[in-house]
Amino acid sequence: MLVSAITPTDAGEGKTTTSIGLAQGFARLGQRVCLALREPSLGPTFGQKGGATGGGLARVVPESDINLHFTGDFHAIGSAHNLLAAMLDNHIHHGNPLGIDPRRVTWRRVIDMNDRALRHVVIGLGGVLEGVPRETGFDITPASEVMAALCLAEGYDDLRRRLTRIVVALTAERAPVTAEDLHAVGAMMVLLKDAMLPNLVQTCDGVPALVHGGPFANIAHGCNSVVATKLALAHADWVVTEAGFGFDLGAEKFFDIKCVSAGLDAAAVVLVATVRALKLHGGAAKTALTTPDPAAVERGLGNLAKHVENIRIFGELPVVALNRFSADTDEEMAVVRAWCDRELVPFAVSDVFARGGEGGTSLAEMVMAHAERRAKPFTPLYDLCESIPVKMEKVARAMYGAREVNWTKEAQRALAQVEKLGFGGLPLCIAKTQKSLSDDPQQLGRPADFEITVRDLLLAAGAGYVVPLLGDIMRMPGLPVSPQAERMDLVDGVVVHTPGGPASATLPPA
Amino acid sequence: MLVSAITPTDAGEGKTTTSIGLAQGFARLGQRVCLALREPSLGPTFGQKGGATGGGLARVVPESDINLHFTGDFHAIGSAHNLLAAMLDNHIHHGNPLGIDPRRVTWRRVIDMNDRALRHVVIGLGGVLEGVPRETGFDITPASEVMAALCLAEGYDDLRRRLTRIVVALTAERAPVTAEDLHAVGAMMVLLKDAMLPNLVQTCDGVPALVHGGPFANIAHGCNSVVATKLALAHADWVVTEAGFGFDLGAEKFFDIKCVSAGLDAAAVVLVATVRALKLHGGAAKTALTTPDPAAVERGLGNLAKHVENIRIFGELPVVALNRFSADTDEEMAVVRAWCDRELVPFAVSDVFARGGEGGTSLAEMVMAHAERRAKPFTPLYDLCESIPVKMEKVARAMYGAREVNWTKEAQRALAQVEKLGFGGLPLCIAKTQKSLSDDPQQLGRPADFEITVRDLLLAAGAGYVVPLLGDIMRMPGLPVSPQAERMDLVDGVVVHTPGGPASATLPPA
Amino acid sequence: MLVSAITPTDAGEGKTTTSIGLAQGFARLGQRVCLALREPSLGPTFGQKGGATGGGLARVVPESDINLHFTGDFHAIGSAHNLLAAMLDNHIHHGNPLGIDPRRVTWRRVIDMNDRALRHVVIGLGGVLEGVPRETGFDITPASEVMAALCLAEGYDDLRRRLTRIVVALTAERAPVTAEDLHAVGAMMVLLKDAMLPNLVQTCDGVPALVHGGPFANIAHGCNSVVATKLALAHADWVVTEAGFGFDLGAEKFFDIKCVSAGLDAAAVVLVATVRALKLHGGAAKTALTTPDPAAVERGLGNLAKHVENIRIFGELPVVALNRFSADTDEEMAVVRAWCDRELVPFAVSDVFARGGEGGTSLAEMVMAHAERRAKPFTPLYDLCESIPVKMEKVARAMYGAREVNWTKEAQRALAQVEKLGFGGLPLCIAKTQKSLSDDPQQLGRPADFEITVRDLLLAAGAGYVVPLLGDIMRMPGLPVSPQAERMDLVDGVVVHTPGGPASATLPPA
Amino acid sequence: MLVSAITPTDAGEGKTTTSIGLAQGFARLGQRVCLALREPSLGPTFGQKGGATGGGLARVVPESDINLHFTGDFHAIGSAHNLLAAMLDNHIHHGNPLGIDPRRVTWRRVIDMNDRALRHVVIGLGGVLEGVPRETGFDITPASEVMAALCLAEGYDDLRRRLTRIVVALTAERAPVTAEDLHAVGAMMVLLKDAMLPNLVQTCDGVPALVHGGPFANIAHGCNSVVATKLALAHADWVVTEAGFGFDLGAEKFFDIKCVSAGLDAAAVVLVATVRALKLHGGAAKTALTTPDPAAVERGLGNLAKHVENIRIFGELPVVALNRFSADTDEEMAVVRAWCDRELVPFAVSDVFARGGEGGTSLAEMVMAHAERRAKPFTPLYDLCESIPVKMEKVARAMYGAREVNWTKEAQRALAQVEKLGFGGLPLCIAKTQKSLSDDPQQLGRPADFEITVRDLLLAAGAGYVVPLLGDIMRMPGLPVSPQAERMDLVDGVVVHTPGGPASATLPPA
Repeated sequence: MLVSAITPTDAGEGKTTTSIGLAQGFARLGQRVCLALREPSLGPTFGQKGGATGGGLARVVPESDINLHFTGDFHAIGSAHNLLAAMLDNHIHHGNPLGIDPRRVTWRRVIDMNDRALRHVVIGLGGVLEGVPRETGFDITPASEVMAALCLAEGYDDLRRRLTRIVVALTAERAPVTAEDLHAVGAMMVLLKDAMLPNLVQTCDGVPALVHGGPFANIAHGCNSVVATKLALAHADWVVTEAGFGFDLGAEKFFDIKCVSAGLDAAAVVLVATVRALKLHGGAAKTALTTPDPAAVERGLGNLAKHVENIRIFGELPVVALNRFSADTDEEMAVVRAWCDRELVPFAVSDVFARGGEGGTSLAEMVMAHAERRAKPFTPLYDLCESIPVKMEKVARAMYGAREVNWTKEAQRALAQVEKLGFGGLPLCIAKTQKSLSDDPQQLGRPADFEITVRDLLLAAGAGYVVPLLGDIMRMPGLPVSPQAERMDLVDGVVVHTPGGPASATLPPA
Repeated sequence: MLVSAITPTDAGEGKTTTSIGLAQGFARLGQRVCLALREPSLGPTFGQKGGATGGGLARVVPESDINLHFTGDFHAIGSAHNLLAAMLDNHIHHGNPLGIDPRRVTWRRVIDMNDRALRHVVIGLGGVLEGVPRETGFDITPASEVMAALCLAEGYDDLRRRLTRIVVALTAERAPVTAEDLHAVGAMMVLLKDAMLPNLVQTCDGVPALVHGGPFANIAHGCNSVVATKLALAHADWVVTEAGFGFDLGAEKFFDIKCVSAGLDAAAVVLVATVRALKLHGGAAKTALTTPDPAAVERGLGNLAKHVENIRIFGELPVVALNRFSADTDEEMAVVRAWCDRELVPFAVSDVFARGGEGGTSLAEMVMAHAERRAKPFTPLYDLCESIPVKMEKVARAMYGAREVNWTKEAQRALAQVEKLGFGGLPLCIAKTQKSLSDDPQQLGRPADFEITVRDLLLAAGAGYVVPLLGDIMRMPGLPVSPQAERMDLVDGVVVHTPGGPASATLPPA
Repeated sequence: MLVSAITPTDAGEGKTTTSIGLAQGFARLGQRVCLALREPSLGPTFGQKGGATGGGLARVVPESDINLHFTGDFHAIGSAHNLLAAMLDNHIHHGNPLGIDPRRVTWRRVIDMNDRALRHVVIGLGGVLEGVPRETGFDITPASEVMAALCLAEGYDDLRRRLTRIVVALTAERAPVTAEDLHAVGAMMVLLKDAMLPNLVQTCDGVPALVHGGPFANIAHGCNSVVATKLALAHADWVVTEAGFGFDLGAEKFFDIKCVSAGLDAAAVVLVATVRALKLHGGAAKTALTTPDPAAVERGLGNLAKHVENIRIFGELPVVALNRFSADTDEEMAVVRAWCDRELVPFAVSDVFARGGEGGTSLAEMVMAHAERRAKPFTPLYDLCESIPVKMEKVARAMYGAREVNWTKEAQRALAQVEKLGFGGLPLCIAKTQKSLSDDPQQLGRPADFEITVRDLLLAAGAGYVVPLLGDIMRMPGLPVSPQAERMDLVDGVVVHTPGGPASATLPPA
Repeated sequence: MLVSAITPTDAGEGKTTTSIGLAQGFARLGQRVCLALREPSLGPTFGQKGGATGGGLARVVPESDINLHFTGDFHAIGSAHNLLAAMLDNHIHHGNPLGIDPRRVTWRRVIDMNDRALRHVVIGLGGVLEGVPRETGFDITPASEVMAALCLAEGYDDLRRRLTRIVVALTAERAPVTAEDLHAVGAMMVLLKDAMLPNLVQTCDGVPALVHGGPFANIAHGCNSVVATKLALAHADWVVTEAGFGFDLGAEKFFDIKCVSAGLDAAAVVLVATVRALKLHGGAAKTALTTPDPAAVERGLGNLAKHVENIRIFGELPVVALNRFSADTDEEMAVVRAWCDRELVPFAVSDVFARGGEGGTSLAEMVMAHAERRAKPFTPLYDLCESIPVKMEKVARAMYGAREVNWTKEAQRALAQVEKLGFGGLPLCIAKTQKSLSDDPQQLGRPADFEITVRDLLLAAGAGYVVPLLGDIMRMPGLPVSPQAERMDLVDGVVVHTPGGPASATLPPA
């Protein structure tokens, strides 16, 4: 089962919590179940959103270890990524026998940190002994192509194949230069030895959970690893997995990239909705999301409707899970239930934060009931053999509801280059804001009659996809005015997070 | 017991191997012994030198795990270091209420990689939304002040105190800005939770070894952690530890920084010498070090003599351990032995690479015999209350044999600033080439009548020292023309290193 | 009379030559006539196009002096522009009491040179004493706002008013910072003392010519100065002036900016066409423009037709002047004449390159005949009180024939800022490629059903306009593979230009 | 006759004023005399010092024209210099067939402006179409090698020879790349056509003055042009010329570079001294220089003595001219006169500021009397065939009184490169602070027992010298907190400079 969500608020709608609670619910019902989740990144942990191990009575443990360095997978991926970068710059410095054009290096560096100031940098300064000057930047580690290669790889051999074909630069003659050309693949494999292996933890009440592979479905494909998913499938009757952010982002990529690549499918798609997100989409102020407002919930249903429609486009069965918050009123919840009844969408309230597995049994039953009725496999949105613009248009129209796709000149040039190198047949891993169905974070609800803009197109030959960058999306987040990091501490050896902690030294910018 | 060495060749003289073999020898003699070693950095592993877990039958295991990410300590230290950097740039970006002068930020970023192109960079480019432009750079993680703070800390509380006082920048009015001012200390503690704890492994024949804290005695203090050393002392009768590179670098800092700070001392100092290093100091070509040449060994004894003298300056007992290589001839070894006899220096051949603990028993016996006779504690080279230039001069004259210390204008300005901020009473952690007793890597043997130049002076208030940069030393190494990374691979899940592997794509620079 | 042209080839269609010849023709007819021309820039002189003093027997003299430094006006303008920049950076360096945000500085530097590598630079590097790091760049001097202020000023007082209101940056609070705030206006006036005065030269046969103010109607407004034009009008019965590139660029700005601002008008508009440009628009290869091809001329007439239409939109009378080249055939010229007859457009062949004033008399007579019949003043394309997007749309539709105007996000943000600062009522000085009626240099002839894209919007409050940047247009040209500079020399004190000179050391890029 | 000075205050000691007044004095005596002076730079005009056309009744006119753009020579030189830079970067951009190493480009750009922020820049940013990124910077135009080539050239042919051999960069193989290799020489000659010709003006009372060639004897050679000097010699019996700053700077270069190169000599050397400068050297505060203090004058005589000694080292006759200021007391002037009498140095008070030529007749008579007694030609300080370090040492010891010359590593590397390229036989054009005989601006009076440091060594093969950079000297000045530019204006078409004008918006830095 795949757990996805409607277009989320900044705090998230509890997809991970619901996934965990759903698995706990299955376990309560005596089912053999396993979770397959994604590893958290340090970026959000210290940035705006916080950790990613569920909440309340629906958690995987040990929480703070998972949220921090965990088994070191992200660090290993970052090291492998950056070793390739260091070998590349070293090659240019030592006479550049491959003839790499320093201006045509596309391989950036990564760090698992929200670090805005590293987005655009000039390196190699300081004179003849300090490398060759060029423009580049850092992305956050989850956006690393090595992360994607690892997540999509079927095993060590496939990982090696993917690393081998990574394109890092072009020569002055526009010929591609690969990780293989730089003799970096072996050392990268060495660094990824343990990171390739799934990590087994458990929920707070003992349900097995494989936590492996990266998040950030806005700027990456944002699914846990194929090997973890398959390991879970091999050892349980039910596997609960998740796809990041709204269905239009994580779940689209789950199907069109991960399932197509690995031959997977979903028995059902649980769509997590919350009263407060629906209120936001219905026009309520961000600061008023705990004030009862059934009318706003009603107005926000368009967003839910679009996601339900999207699930059906893939030929999947939607089940709406209303993730209950303490401020939700019965009247508000009834608005959602009524809509689902009207639209013949299975609906259940999930109360797993407060009640753990017990709060997830009704959802689990609902899912079981529907999942067993499923017959046909899912239908991808596009054929790989279609051209990249056609694929882009199909996703934009079907998933986002866009009227038209614009390509900037830069994106058109990048597209021509990608096609010339023979990578036109790759799937798309679209980078887009998670805050809207459109590419504009201000467009809430169900935007209509809008255009989207492809700003640039990146080749990730090792991951096996191309990345259209939509709107203003960036692959390196920044910290907010007052990051979570300011409110975290270690007290008697225990990680403590005080949301209402000491005031920040930083003030809002003028 | 402290294991140090004469001025080394590029490949190292086997200090770690000898330390391990010595402990193995102690164990063979029925003694309760424990090793306290340093963790390897990925920089040399993929660069020129390779891993750092000993060799032959004198190794700590599991080798490749220790050499790679190990328990993730370096990654945690790097994350804590870089989080502080990200919070600093974030503060400047969001209106800069503390009034930090972007040009007076001294806190750089770190990465555990040899990456020359990151030495000097301009960050924050790309416009108003992408941070504030400024010049900075990356050091290798072992040179991180967080690494030093962790190594020198007596425990969590001391670590917190050290992090709190880290000075990251000056305001336009030249007031210091600390990690505390940026509210970063708690989050850094969180990231260092596990890294603070020593890691227990063992030698290939079962002798316990605590491997904890950082290497690079040329650009850092280069000793394993205080907590590991004290843990070892609490559980064994004999503890074998090491200090990086020649005695003038690692061991000087071991005594003047680590022992002074933590109240430690050494029972004996084992000085590792090799025939091939002595030949190099005696003028033999780098490519001829395996050709028998007793005359060159004889000529190179000056270097050995200076290190022996240095040990005695600290009031310590030197024991010379000749680390045997297969190419060494009896005649060559006899030259060293004869000198030691003449100078009344205890001498033993160490054959631990080939024979493990058995090859280390005679050295162990020699050390035990002398260590038990030791009476007085060691004498530091300088009093902390002396001025920084006086301290610098004392080290330069006593340890290096320099005639005079020059300070560049930049260094003089930095010195004035450090003194003005009230940090004149800190000890020195001198960054200097490991290839010579002087600050010029070309001056082999025992250079005489030379001057050294302090190029700059860095404040590491959290580590609790200042760093005079001597000569051309850099805190971020570069990769060689053909790095070890090109010859490493993962074969059937096992790390394989093929020194004579496939030819590099890189050619020597013109 | 205004002389304009159809969309030109890279070599230009002889607008300046025709203007000169037309004035010479008037003089031959006994009329009191004066030329008002623009000063050449060193950029094209040493770049691709060469000098700008007419040709053959229709030249202003002394040619090479006019083409080189002339009276130093451009250098003075560059100095005034760059002094303001230096004072701005000096202000930021010395404590920045005005609170300028270094990232929001919009004032770039200028140099009268085609120098691609200066387009995007980072300045202020090198440490605390060397200024504050920030991103900026250089434009070519003709694109300087000081150039425009000088050209549009009615005299010293007006120039001072314009300089005073130049906006160079925003503070962190988005308040504008002006040249006045930096106390730079007086010194700029001092530097512009002589540059403000028109320069009197003559044609090779003695017709007076005022050469004053800047070229580059693609990236600037590209008209000679108002004071020169008015001086000419005060001393002659007929004044011949020119507007750069095609009518859509220079002439549109001549009317909507210069004439509106200075209360001027044109008695007639001479539209220069050439057989070879029409062939290019008709699809002939660039290398085949001297091969007779009447059919291509016929196909290219659409471009001519659009420019004639544009002239009439302003309420002006078009006169087509066919600038004769030696390779033109009678049949080709007949094609143009026939079209003009059909469309009731006065037509004359201009043969001034070969025959000087004599070759211009028939054109002069034709112009006199029509100019005297003119009654109504011209109609601007837009009202200043209309919003910037409306003005942009009016020009794009009327002049270029565009279907729609797109604004990038960056341009939208800039627009919002300009409007917020209260400059929404300024006219537009559109920067657009000169090679097409559209913003895409590849679209020759009369493109239809196309969109244009506003990439950015610059405020030139001192000039008194805003600059929409269209397509890929850049305000700093680059040198070609083999610049004219390689073929120029001084021989016996005389400037020699050898088009077929020594081969370049530079080869085409891969 | 050469007019030089003692080590000056920031405002200058009136060398130009004295030169003019001396010539005026000669004219009053009925002699045929001509001045040969240097052109002012816009840098000091708008920076700290102001213009350079003399003062009071000893001025050359038209003052403000000479101080501003004058005949455009500096702009022409800047254009020629920067055209070479643009062609160089263009070459690298278009495939770089000469194989230039972008990191080994030594040719910077110039601008005639004090612009600190341009000292260190990174250019060529912005992507593939915008050039190749590299580090470089701007110098002030008087420091341009083209300026020096023009000043030292005997005519057009010699200028061409000098431009031809300018070395702008090295290839990766360390081969030199010249202006000739870039085919830039012809175009540079074209740009310098008029700048090569001397400019004739006159003093306010009609004495002819050739004003030609560049200032800044601290960072350039700082003499007027050879062609102007020779032109003056050909048309007058007496020629008065000047050399910038103290005798140790301008006059040393006048003899060792200009006279050696052009076969010139001086009949006498007038050494301008002022009471206020002597007071400064005697320890008086900068703010107390108008307070009578004969004791400070007495203490400052050491500086005068050293310059007198230096003149005699060259075998020249010194004549001390006390440039009278209104605040000078008789007692103070008597101190200087007494010293000169004691040391047998001819002495005269110059009162030309207040009295013009009349105030210069006694000095003129004194000079005539001594100049006619002169017999032997001057002796250069060094032979060209000596090595660069020997030449440097000779100047440092003889002229500055230094004990020792240190070379930084960077300077040593540059020296090795210069010698390898075969330019070890060139003379030195030493860049050094003008504020002290040493390389430290704080060391006033006659410093003793000091070392100087060569920080870097630049090759100026076209100028025909090498430039040792001493101490912290920079070739691009910065503006002060409140530059003169803030107090200049154009009033009724006249340049007005109000020293006590409106307060600056800039405050002193913290």
